[in-house]
Amino acid sequence: MSKRIELFDTTLRDGTQGEGINFSLEEKIQIAKRLDAFGITYIEGGWPGSNPKDIGFFERARDVQFKNAKIAAFGSTRHAKNAPEDDPNLQELIKSGAPVATIFGKSWTLHVKNALRVELPVNLEMIKSSVEFLKSNGLMVIYDAEHFFDGYKSDSGYAVETLLAAQEGGAERLVFCDTNGGSLPHEIEAIVEKIKSHLKVPMGIHTHNDGGLAAANALAAVRGGVTHVQGTINGIGERCGNVDLTTVIPNLQVKMGFEVVSDEQLATLFELAEYVAEIGHYDRPTNQPFVGNSAFAHKGGIHVSAVQRDSSTYEHISPELVGNRQRVLISELSGRSNIMDFLAGMDLDIDNATPVGQAVLQQVKERENEGYLYETAGASMELLIKRELGLHKKFFEPISYRVLVDQTPAGHLWSEATVRLKVGGSEHYEAADGDGPVNALDRALRKSLEPYYPCLGNVELIDFKVRIIDSQLGTGAKTRVLISTTDGERTWTTTGVSFNLIEASWEALLDSVDYKLLLAEEVPVKAKAAS
Amino acid sequence: MSKRIELFDTTLRDGTQGEGINFSLEEKIQIAKRLDAFGITYIEGGWPGSNPKDIGFFERARDVQFKNAKIAAFGSTRHAKNAPEDDPNLQELIKSGAPVATIFGKSWTLHVKNALRVELPVNLEMIKSSVEFLKSNGLMVIYDAEHFFDGYKSDSGYAVETLLAAQEGGAERLVFCDTNGGSLPHEIEAIVEKIKSHLKVPMGIHTHNDGGLAAANALAAVRGGVTHVQGTINGIGERCGNVDLTTVIPNLQVKMGFEVVSDEQLATLFELAEYVAEIGHYDRPTNQPFVGNSAFAHKGGIHVSAVQRDSSTYEHISPELVGNRQRVLISELSGRSNIMDFLAGMDLDIDNATPVGQAVLQQVKERENEGYLYETAGASMELLIKRELGLHKKFFEPISYRVLVDQTPAGHLWSEATVRLKVGGSEHYEAADGDGPVNALDRALRKSLEPYYPCLGNVELIDFKVRIIDSQLGTGAKTRVLISTTDGERTWTTTGVSFNLIEASWEALLDSVDYKLLLAEEVPVKAKAAS
Repeated sequence: MSKRIELFDTTLRDGTQGEGINFSLEEKIQIAKRLDAFGITYIEGGWPGSNPKDIGFFERARDVQFKNAKIAAFGSTRHAKNAPEDDPNLQELIKSGAPVATIFGKSWTLHVKNALRVELPVNLEMIKSSVEFLKSNGLMVIYDAEHFFDGYKSDSGYAVETLLAAQEGGAERLVFCDTNGGSLPHEIEAIVEKIKSHLKVPMGIHTHNDGGLAAANALAAVRGGVTHVQGTINGIGERCGNVDLTTVIPNLQVKMGFEVVSDEQLATLFELAEYVAEIGHYDRPTNQPFVGNSAFAHKGGIHVSAVQRDSSTYEHISPELVGNRQRVLISELSGRSNIMDFLAGMDLDIDNATPVGQAVLQQVKERENEGYLYETAGASMELLIKRELGLHKKFFEPISYRVLVDQTPAGHLWSEATVRLKVGGSEHYEAADGDGPVNALDRALRKSLEPYYPCLGNVELIDFKVRIIDSQLGTGAKTRVLISTTDGERTWTTTGVSFNLIEASWEALLDSVDYKLLLAEEVPVKAKAAS
Repeated sequence: MSKRIELFDTTLRDGTQGEGINFSLEEKIQIAKRLDAFGITYIEGGWPGSNPKDIGFFERARDVQFKNAKIAAFGSTRHAKNAPEDDPNLQELIKSGAPVATIFGKSWTLHVKNALRVELPVNLEMIKSSVEFLKSNGLMVIYDAEHFFDGYKSDSGYAVETLLAAQEGGAERLVFCDTNGGSLPHEIEAIVEKIKSHLKVPMGIHTHNDGGLAAANALAAVRGGVTHVQGTINGIGERCGNVDLTTVIPNLQVKMGFEVVSDEQLATLFELAEYVAEIGHYDRPTNQPFVGNSAFAHKGGIHVSAVQRDSSTYEHISPELVGNRQRVLISELSGRSNIMDFLAGMDLDIDNATPVGQAVLQQVKERENEGYLYETAGASMELLIKRELGLHKKFFEPISYRVLVDQTPAGHLWSEATVRLKVGGSEHYEAADGDGPVNALDRALRKSLEPYYPCLGNVELIDFKVRIIDSQLGTGAKTRVLISTTDGERTWTTTGVSFNLIEASWEALLDSVDYKLLLAEEVPVKAKAAS
């Protein structure tokens, strides 16, 4: 059995069938280059017979020098009433200029009868002649047997005949597709085992995740003897998605000992996942296997202390193999180890056995009991610890604030905030309006501080989240606010908790500004004049 | 082989180890009730030895009448230096009052040596005596063999001995944990096959998704002979999560022919997934198998037309089996059918071809473009339609409002609202304070209206949610508020959207009151006197 696995990526074709997924032509080219660098062998760029953007992709791709990858164009077997040379779909594949054509044909008698509406032997001839025609035009042909496993379960003899038709036509790969994503791993392994003696060319697998088993199904097929694996980056695709190559690749290479990509390429898997999600403007799940941001994040106290002694205790592989990293989360479930890890990251060498270490631990636990959640608000956590340790400088002193939201009888809506604080030795009173009460507060606060701390000028709030804790208490419930802020270089998140959502927002705003001042460590400069 | 599978849910314990997951005590009780109704046999509520919230859960749970489920408390085997009766952790399990204790012990010699730091035979004795002690105190004991598969691969003899120690102690379930989530399905099936002849009590499986194979691993164990399956709703849990029961259950029941829950319970799977995510305030992936919003959503042209003729062509199961539904991602079409569906539910027989039907359709589309989301706010949707159709009576007329939040220099925080409106032919001006600005607004509004509509006296806000739409715009982003209200008999949800979160809340409050008045259809009574 060969230990070499060949990757076929269809992010740019099957992936775009996913809900909310849409790549521009330029984005498709960028992704293709990245896939090439990663070590993908075949990159399916689109279906030139289906839309102009896909035709454009193949035009552009002809001018790109790919290091390893071959570009594949997707299409179907010829229409029943066309000779191959008159079939527009096959013509588009040739016109695309792609060196590889992937064409799909029907394996399931239900589809032959109800979708194609032709006699069973006619479908076999359509498969064979379509492959032959593309081959005679110089293309490599990969044959995708659509609904192969459903077809096999319904009429195994016919399903195998469709593969043989493609093989006779000269197909260079025969790919078994679990199109509806409903097969089980043991079924797939058994079916591949049974049919492989009939086939002379390398076999492939194409799975979907409708049963949550796409990765297991691909691995089962490889165990059966398949050497070509199709999928998408991050598992995007119609319904529940195609199989996620970022899951399959490390399983094959690290767990099962196959050669898939080089170790250096594997170590860029995390970046690849980020890159495709970034370009596609979609959020990857944080708990994505191998490449998720939480994939190696530890929260339970016992786990954290064990992992710090020996990472294999609670990590199935070393995160660096796929370019990911270990993280330790702070929460009410944290033991000391989590917090001490955080302190170490702050370059604070504090022993949790000391009274100071105990006090910090106690503070964090108490605040989390009140509803604070520090695992997503690292900046507030850092400020809390520094304040507790007496390491925090007071950049300014808030005294009071007032917020007014007024909807007039004429229907005019306005929001105003006044802020009173002490900075640079004197007291300041400022007012501002805004789109809403928090925006007004934010503006009044910065108006007071900017003359003293000009570095606040390039600070911007980029995310604002509100969560009601114990929302069952209605409008009398506690509110947790998270604010993310950036200064262009760094981004930090702060939090506030109160029964009053304005107060919770105010607290998060104060921390947001405070953290920036901590970063800048600027000495107050004498203000020119209060605006 | 028994075809009956027993479910053990650990959403409330292992699930809370997931990044960003945090349930309040009240929320944990609500989820437990829902899990009970769904047909879960064992509900693990927490680790009473680890934190006060978990202790509180078991106190509350003692007063709840569960229909089918038994509550389980989690803990570890005794500490090496304690006798069982002096071990604080085991004591907490007994004190919890839960009828079932799940305790975990070490199967992997690496952990026995490096984490427990005891001799191998000592660990065996710790397991046996801990189980015995809990049994002798009247608890049913489920034994979780931590790192079982890793332990087995490293020293199969010892791993099996740990199971036998638990069995001798009287454990009633022996659960194989793939704690690090790195095992492969074929390994799990083979190991279970090999060891089952040694064991006399029912076997269980507990998998994690680090390799993207948690569901396949659970199914493989069941094929090997396991009859007890542990997991969480929506697969929440540390790192990549625990196995998702919403994936495992339909695979076992629909695909593999096991009895897990009743067909009626299975048909509420989608709702269960929604409920837990909603309470936990996290977003489920849209492509979640079986219960994702995109799980049966068709985008490709060919697929859509085929599915409309025969859904089995591109759907692996009927979505109704799990309470999900087919969606066709042609936005305008799907929008229209949704709305017509809703009108039918209101007993309004309106053809979308008529001008009235078109106008309603247009209104809903425009508002959804502005950020309203009516699928979770049926009461606001109904009011919108009735207003558009001229079927809505004006119970009162809001004129203006003002909200003030004031934090004084002395640190006192107060919130006040004034509301001006017309009701029963005259204008009223009322003021009230509250825990926060929205609470104050709510009180001022009711104070104005109650003299005219006494039915508002028993109305209570029970849920308040705030979501920032386009949160990337920071505090200048749009806010969507959802308010749920009850009058003891019925519960309804209303919504408001604005750049100003007070205004969005006000809008939802007005709809909340309006909807109650619509339900009551009361004629204004002459007020005795404005308070």
